[in-house]
Amino acid sequence: MQIAILLYDRFTSLDAIGPYEMLCRLPDTETVFVAEQAGPVTNDKGSLRLVAEKSLDEVRTPDIVVVPGGPGTEETLRNAALADWLRTVDATTTWTTSVCTGSILLAGAGLLTGRRATTHWLGYDTLAALGAEPTGERVVVDGKYITAAGVSSGIDMGLTLVGRLAGDEFAQAVQLLTEYDPQPPYDAGSPLKAPADLVARLRSGSHLIVR
Amino acid sequence: MQIAILLYDRFTSLDAIGPYEMLCRLPDTETVFVAEQAGPVTNDKGSLRLVAEKSLDEVRTPDIVVVPGGPGTEETLRNAALADWLRTVDATTTWTTSVCTGSILLAGAGLLTGRRATTHWLGYDTLAALGAEPTGERVVVDGKYITAAGVSSGIDMGLTLVGRLAGDEFAQAVQLLTEYDPQPPYDAGSPLKAPADLVARLRSGSHLIVR
Repeated sequence: MQIAILLYDRFTSLDAIGPYEMLCRLPDTETVFVAEQAGPVTNDKGSLRLVAEKSLDEVRTPDIVVVPGGPGTEETLRNAALADWLRTVDATTTWTTSVCTGSILLAGAGLLTGRRATTHWLGYDTLAALGAEPTGERVVVDGKYITAAGVSSGIDMGLTLVGRLAGDEFAQAVQLLTEYDPQPPYDAGSPLKAPADLVARLRSGSHLIVR
Repeated sequence: MQIAILLYDRFTSLDAIGPYEMLCRLPDTETVFVAEQAGPVTNDKGSLRLVAEKSLDEVRTPDIVVVPGGPGTEETLRNAALADWLRTVDATTTWTTSVCTGSILLAGAGLLTGRRATTHWLGYDTLAALGAEPTGERVVVDGKYITAAGVSSGIDMGLTLVGRLAGDEFAQAVQLLTEYDPQPPYDAGSPLKAPADLVARLRSGSHLIVR
């Protein structure tokens, strides 16, 4: 089984590595990082470079594709070659998946039309404009499409997919070995839980205190 | 402020990227991946290469150092140059931190002697043998030393450190933007929660069902 994780300029690193760290433990599986050109790909902060081992041309029939999100999705959405590749691989995948605004790229390629899906909480409108039906769930399974919410949700998505592919006991072993027993020091991880004024400020974009 | 994240052969990728994704959002901060030699460093699965932008010689006075874990710690523990570097940078850091078996490297360099610390749940004995006092907590702060439990716990460690450095509201904004509202599909992320037979099998190492 081949798992292809897409990289592109200004992707968010945890979007890619969260599911990778879960999925790479599946038996009899090859995981490959892929980008338009093989070689290092720079993340959204400019301080991290992850190597794409293969170009899009070299990976045509992965069983699973994972599309991370990031600020780079806006520009990547206009990349016709990449949308072509997504449609091509999707024709034969068992699972087509995304994290964060990666679902915007899937929707832009026409793959989520009429499907329940999710994205980063700031991206619901964009996802809807591209024909999907956004939900507020953290991991959304609709047919062979699994989309996850913002950034860190890719870990939950990856572990969900490990369970589907290798069974509950195997997935629990992966969870135990990665000690995935999260204990965030705050409870502000969703717009329903964070202080309302913080949500409003981030929504307005006019007073971004973090990037 | 400079944050140095150490890479070495056979590190675990999420150990490094979890804290990175939280810490890289701090204002006025440079984050740099560092290794013995600059260039791509291969992870424990052999399918991921992350670029170290600087060699150890080029990063001598980081404010924060982050040491990820991974199967490579066993060999790295015998690397005297790396232990020297850890002692050198620790002399001037504000925070010296680790994820998973990264604390084994800190302890091996003599930095955790007599200190409360943690590591991957399978590594308590090794950590104790190297002079630290292991605890079962997920994130342990003892003076300027912050050690985190297995793999995924680096996210909690990173967010804890963001809060110490930039305040609770900033940390909550980071949590919200990374949508860190974990919802694992299983509740087996610690040896106290996972099925007892699974814990026993992984502890024995004789019937490893995942690597």
